[in-house]
Amino acid sequence: MSFPIWMSGIQQRTESALEAALPAPGLAPARLHQAMRYSVLGGGKRVRPLLCHAAGSLFEADSSVLDAPSIAVELIHAYSLVHDDLPCMDDDVLRRGKPTCHVEYDEATALLVGDALQTHAFQVLSSRLPGIAAARQLDMLHLLAVASGSRGMAGGQAIDLAAVGEQLTISELEFMHIRKTGALIRAAVLLGAHCGEAAPDALESLGHFANRIGLLFQVVDDILDAEASTATLGKTAGKDAAQNKPTYVNILGVSEAKAMAGKLRQEAHDALAPFGQSALRLHELTDFIVERNF
Amino acid sequence: MSFPIWMSGIQQRTESALEAALPAPGLAPARLHQAMRYSVLGGGKRVRPLLCHAAGSLFEADSSVLDAPSIAVELIHAYSLVHDDLPCMDDDVLRRGKPTCHVEYDEATALLVGDALQTHAFQVLSSRLPGIAAARQLDMLHLLAVASGSRGMAGGQAIDLAAVGEQLTISELEFMHIRKTGALIRAAVLLGAHCGEAAPDALESLGHFANRIGLLFQVVDDILDAEASTATLGKTAGKDAAQNKPTYVNILGVSEAKAMAGKLRQEAHDALAPFGQSALRLHELTDFIVERNF
Repeated sequence: MSFPIWMSGIQQRTESALEAALPAPGLAPARLHQAMRYSVLGGGKRVRPLLCHAAGSLFEADSSVLDAPSIAVELIHAYSLVHDDLPCMDDDVLRRGKPTCHVEYDEATALLVGDALQTHAFQVLSSRLPGIAAARQLDMLHLLAVASGSRGMAGGQAIDLAAVGEQLTISELEFMHIRKTGALIRAAVLLGAHCGEAAPDALESLGHFANRIGLLFQVVDDILDAEASTATLGKTAGKDAAQNKPTYVNILGVSEAKAMAGKLRQEAHDALAPFGQSALRLHELTDFIVERNF
Repeated sequence: MSFPIWMSGIQQRTESALEAALPAPGLAPARLHQAMRYSVLGGGKRVRPLLCHAAGSLFEADSSVLDAPSIAVELIHAYSLVHDDLPCMDDDVLRRGKPTCHVEYDEATALLVGDALQTHAFQVLSSRLPGIAAARQLDMLHLLAVASGSRGMAGGQAIDLAAVGEQLTISELEFMHIRKTGALIRAAVLLGAHCGEAAPDALESLGHFANRIGLLFQVVDDILDAEASTATLGKTAGKDAAQNKPTYVNILGVSEAKAMAGKLRQEAHDALAPFGQSALRLHELTDFIVERNF
């Protein structure tokens, strides 16, 4: 199966799984449920679910089992976007080519949407997964919580807030992004591997891989923010510069940032060496992360 | 042991457990961790941990095991208060006698504090609990997630938002409060019982009990909001009337609201009948909920 066909299949099954997992739009409180669905469905490239499925396929995990951690991670990601777009944070009006949640609904609803999407991630991942030992599933929940919390994604957001207008070094910027973007990408990869009952050494190799693509994802994001248009991105372009946020591009310049992306891409491929040919999808996703234009 | 001494002991051990479970104030991102601790420690009567320990003691659950669900529920409660106090929600400046989180820090930090406290609740409850089967612990996590999400607490908040300025019937008000306050109180009771490996029929009886005290708690809250002073409450009094929110007091009047509280109190005591004398602490807590002045 070609990569685009595989990718499109995972994106479609992720959309269906999210659609089925989210409360129905007519269920009370209907406005909240509609706003949750608005913020999650019908958009996004589903990079984290793709990584989760690709990592799981390395260990021949069942796709139907992989849907649960995939959508749990995607729900965490979606909640972070809704809260990140709020006026007290990035104050953004456009996301995935649509008005942001607080613009389409209102600020209080967007706050509750983010809150409830986070809870829903843990609700999904605490439903019993067939074929997964309960003890391993608890470890998976713990992994997702650590990746999302104050030492992971939420902590990265806090560091990002504090960094506005500051001069950061490359290592300070890396410290932030390992948390803000990297932690959840790492969780997506490792949760997929857990579904295939991966052994500790395989988890360790995948952890190294995930750390590289987490940073790679961010470096490419910074390059796109500097170079692409709002229409292509489906979100406001040039935002980081306008908000005076430190990025790889404004610390290193575009050309050195691209060189850094090339180096991280190679390191990510190298980290997959232990898995040989069976890591095809993860290799392809690594290239996809670099070559995307969104 | 007298009730006040028992209560004070649980409050102290809850404070210590929260103190130990929250990230240290010097750990990066330090401002976020300090604000999380500010919002959780040193205040609150810890009603939900008291209920969790009291329900667990019915089945001779180990107190050290009960600490985990107790603080998980309290962290969810604390996150909901931080977000509820934000300008786009209740816009309140006083909580537990101190400036609210967004007043003491800033709005973006308070948003992230609430987010990270919610995550931390799931992190705490997904750490392996000694003596609890992993499958039961997964069920406990699921119970907490359902109680906190869009069909539970967050959903209740959304209904509350929509109800401002509306005329609700008693049954609509009950529908809201069963979610907004009741769901988490019920979770506290049931999680405690799970720690003692309670059987399904015992869980069902405790569910009935919890539903009564959840509503009782809210009716008493409305009476206090109408009658007590800001100094006594440690939060802004008269807020519901000022915000034109429907309450038991403004639908029923104070005297009928008090009669309703008396009826719910009796029903709560009755629901404990199957447990005989061993439910002493739950009986005492029921009376405490009615007789409190905070």
